[in-house]
Amino acid sequence: MKGRERARLIAVARGDEAPDTVIEGAQVFLAHTREWISGDVAIADGMVAGIGSFEGGERIDARGKWLVPGFIDAHMHVESSKLTPAQFARAVLPHGTTAIVCDPHEVANVLGSDGVHWMLDASEGLPLTVFVMAPSCVPASAFESPRRELTVGDMEAILRRRRALGVAEMMNFPGVIAGDPAVLEKLEVRGASHADGHAPGVLGSSLDAYAAAGIRSDHEAFTAEEALEKRRRGMWVLLREASNARNLVDLLPLVREHGPEFCAFCTDDREPDMLLRDGHINQMCRIAVSEGVPVEDVLVMATLNAAQAHRLDGHGAIAPGYRADLVVLDDLSSFEPSLVLAGGRVAARDGVASPFPLPATPAHVLGTVRSAPLREADLALEADGDVRVIEIVPEQLITIARTVSPSRSNRHVVADPSRDLAKIAVIERHHATGRVGRGLVTGFGLTRGAFASTVAHDAHNVVAVGTDDASILACAARLQELGGGCVVAVEGSVTGELPLPVAGLLSDQPVEDVVASLDALHAQLRELGVTIEAPFMTLSFLALSVIPALKITDRGLVDVERFEIVPLSAG
Amino acid sequence: MKGRERARLIAVARGDEAPDTVIEGAQVFLAHTREWISGDVAIADGMVAGIGSFEGGERIDARGKWLVPGFIDAHMHVESSKLTPAQFARAVLPHGTTAIVCDPHEVANVLGSDGVHWMLDASEGLPLTVFVMAPSCVPASAFESPRRELTVGDMEAILRRRRALGVAEMMNFPGVIAGDPAVLEKLEVRGASHADGHAPGVLGSSLDAYAAAGIRSDHEAFTAEEALEKRRRGMWVLLREASNARNLVDLLPLVREHGPEFCAFCTDDREPDMLLRDGHINQMCRIAVSEGVPVEDVLVMATLNAAQAHRLDGHGAIAPGYRADLVVLDDLSSFEPSLVLAGGRVAARDGVASPFPLPATPAHVLGTVRSAPLREADLALEADGDVRVIEIVPEQLITIARTVSPSRSNRHVVADPSRDLAKIAVIERHHATGRVGRGLVTGFGLTRGAFASTVAHDAHNVVAVGTDDASILACAARLQELGGGCVVAVEGSVTGELPLPVAGLLSDQPVEDVVASLDALHAQLRELGVTIEAPFMTLSFLALSVIPALKITDRGLVDVERFEIVPLSAG
Repeated sequence: MKGRERARLIAVARGDEAPDTVIEGAQVFLAHTREWISGDVAIADGMVAGIGSFEGGERIDARGKWLVPGFIDAHMHVESSKLTPAQFARAVLPHGTTAIVCDPHEVANVLGSDGVHWMLDASEGLPLTVFVMAPSCVPASAFESPRRELTVGDMEAILRRRRALGVAEMMNFPGVIAGDPAVLEKLEVRGASHADGHAPGVLGSSLDAYAAAGIRSDHEAFTAEEALEKRRRGMWVLLREASNARNLVDLLPLVREHGPEFCAFCTDDREPDMLLRDGHINQMCRIAVSEGVPVEDVLVMATLNAAQAHRLDGHGAIAPGYRADLVVLDDLSSFEPSLVLAGGRVAARDGVASPFPLPATPAHVLGTVRSAPLREADLALEADGDVRVIEIVPEQLITIARTVSPSRSNRHVVADPSRDLAKIAVIERHHATGRVGRGLVTGFGLTRGAFASTVAHDAHNVVAVGTDDASILACAARLQELGGGCVVAVEGSVTGELPLPVAGLLSDQPVEDVVASLDALHAQLRELGVTIEAPFMTLSFLALSVIPALKITDRGLVDVERFEIVPLSAG
Repeated sequence: MKGRERARLIAVARGDEAPDTVIEGAQVFLAHTREWISGDVAIADGMVAGIGSFEGGERIDARGKWLVPGFIDAHMHVESSKLTPAQFARAVLPHGTTAIVCDPHEVANVLGSDGVHWMLDASEGLPLTVFVMAPSCVPASAFESPRRELTVGDMEAILRRRRALGVAEMMNFPGVIAGDPAVLEKLEVRGASHADGHAPGVLGSSLDAYAAAGIRSDHEAFTAEEALEKRRRGMWVLLREASNARNLVDLLPLVREHGPEFCAFCTDDREPDMLLRDGHINQMCRIAVSEGVPVEDVLVMATLNAAQAHRLDGHGAIAPGYRADLVVLDDLSSFEPSLVLAGGRVAARDGVASPFPLPATPAHVLGTVRSAPLREADLALEADGDVRVIEIVPEQLITIARTVSPSRSNRHVVADPSRDLAKIAVIERHHATGRVGRGLVTGFGLTRGAFASTVAHDAHNVVAVGTDDASILACAARLQELGGGCVVAVEGSVTGELPLPVAGLLSDQPVEDVVASLDALHAQLRELGVTIEAPFMTLSFLALSVIPALKITDRGLVDVERFEIVPLSAG
């Protein structure tokens, strides 16, 4: 804060100058004591000056309502929303979220550190405060082909920027536990205030080892017992409710039995439809209250604790000298704000975000699909005997490694919709190497056509599934033209699409439009026989080479448990 | 931590390498969940590797005992102990204190920023971890004459050093509340992670104004209500138990009613006798438990909360990757440790500190008493009519401004022991200016002789009180020879002394010897008629020009309420 603004804030607090805005007469939540007090909240230059009785300024009547700090998402990836930071802000501000701590590792896979710097640039001046962690695991594994590796030097440069905090989730927990010097070097990067963790199912001496590396949070616990073990070791437990991992209810016993200390809320990965339909951190508040957690404990997890986990001074509470991120609630059960202020200005009212200028998108984050032209020969599957097949597990990120005797045509292994065997291909798209990983997948129920996406964790090459090569080729060609997105094709012709021009990951359109397009694509896929709930999300994780059991990248099939590339042939 | 050490720590946590030390079978306090669990604590390279079952290493049997994190003093001035950092460490480690956050503003008054840099140098490598805040208020007021003013630039240079954290207690609360730009500039100094406060009795809109400046702690609350108001505004409440301000019992209702969150313990100013006889943070634990606060809440305030208040990562808990500062307690009521480990090494056992090498004291912090030769004429009091007299209030820092008709001799105002009127003088000692402030004081009960000290808050010029000029002159001359200390003289001859050669504030001798010398001086003063409990401590605050009502500096008598220099004559 500039000296003159600070002096004015102090004068407003004293009562010697009029505030810009006064929120009158609400029950105000005090996060540091978990109390409610009645009073006016005075705002000057975007900050809270004081709570009491204030004259002047624009008046907002909040009598009979509750005033709480803006919600903070303690760990998430903006890219999962398929929205630019500005459109993401428009989507979550009506839900009361006023700050997020994001790990932009998806754009980092596509654009290197340029992607992270763009995320910081594109979130500058938004009503939503966007804090950024420096991605620690690009690529996710040696089997993946992002645009380039993100180095310690890249992380250091990111951490010199305002709003850049620390080391993003260290997903390479085996490397940490093994004491890999290159991994430990990232944890000690200059300029990081702290390091976030990611240690699913890690317990006992392995968890000791992981925590001994200085990692101070985790958001991967699946049970309250696992979360308790982590908190005992000095790690912040970030309770997660993601599209693909709904852990909140299972974790709440930790809060009920041990209190909300060292617990905060996070969404990790939320698809646009979940943002639009369920909400954001406010939905976690709703669930937690309905599960019997005292509302004051819920609110402190949704606000101040997230700020403390990330050592964010002046965020997460309604107190003098804190940023005026404020949420007016008409009740303490639905958590649907009637008014949201961000930095002291009205950011949303009755579920609708206030307009703000959208930043222009620079050319260098567009047109990022640079595949070599895909030919039918690139999709040919050749193998003798039985072959490996990826079996998807509905609503989970893991897959099962199956072995089947495939159908063949002209000595080639082919898709066979009658047995729910589709062809899957991952096409390198950053350097036009022409590298294509090929295999078979079962579980989608696709009976004809193909669908494909440039959202393919974590390297975000093109991933396509189809029953015929012509439709796969049509999808790939269209994605190249669009600069990325999600497409469906039937009989060699594209029938539906959602363009994601920014890094091939993000739309620059509002969440409502993105959801409508995705809904239409999903409807098409249902007509093409697909039976699972969120086929594009499932598709996007089939390329993630660090989750068991059998995955596929542009380098081929990956046996994640043996951590090696394996041939199609199971012989 | 270096990469190789980190890798070894992780290997020890995994169980693949032997720890250096294992503390076996204690009930271990987990600060993040406020639980006790039974287990071995493994230590490697001074850090906790894990809690569980560990083979090898040096074994310390703690079965049937309690193991808690080392205690942390959240705000204090080492100088009040009259001990060098090394001797202070020897004094408090047996009490279980393993880290302190100090504000070295006393040495800063005497030595400028050199004093602060020396404090950092002299505490390097000690078993006690010494964190330093950059002094924000040197001089304490324009009426005081330290060696020099400490500037924002000085603070910035201090904050570039390891173990330097933030802005030390901002005592100039009127300046903050008034929005004085020079004061606000100090709060925004580059490199500060946070700013500590000092706002005695400040409430309501003044407190809003003070907090709006971004100040995030206070240790001056006298009542639980005042402390609650501060905590509501997002300030850490540092509960104080000092030699001259025993606030703990009065503040504990805050903890009992609102929990221990945002509360930590501090000692502020402890005289050597209090350290030796009562202890340190462990004495606060003892009191708090006896006052009905649950022991787990007490321990979290004495450890992790202090670390969090100062954003100290890896301190204040027993968890992997935390510094192995550990205290073995045989009971949870006396809090007298049977064993203390600091950085994984035995630092004290059964009340006795383990030996460690004492650092050499550099010449530039010695010989700091540089007064012009004091002559009898410098002590002459001339005034017509009634005169002002400082009346001391036993066991308080405030004084009363009295007016009396003085005794006179040869037209000079003189001391008159029959009326308990002693002469008081403050002699500038940093630049040999010859400046001497003179006046009268009542309340000591001194019947003959004089006593004097170079400990005289905050500028630490020479302060002397006496019934005859010859004894005052003898004291001043001896202090010059000693380079500072506390002395007593009778009939013009020095009869007792405690040398404080370091900055005129600190002894390089053990606490036991310092206390013995001070006891002897106090015994002498009792023989000379002094009736109050701690006359040297009282004397040292008579020069502090920011506490009401009438004080004295080398510039003369200060009416603190009018905040101006006033003449001896009350006419």
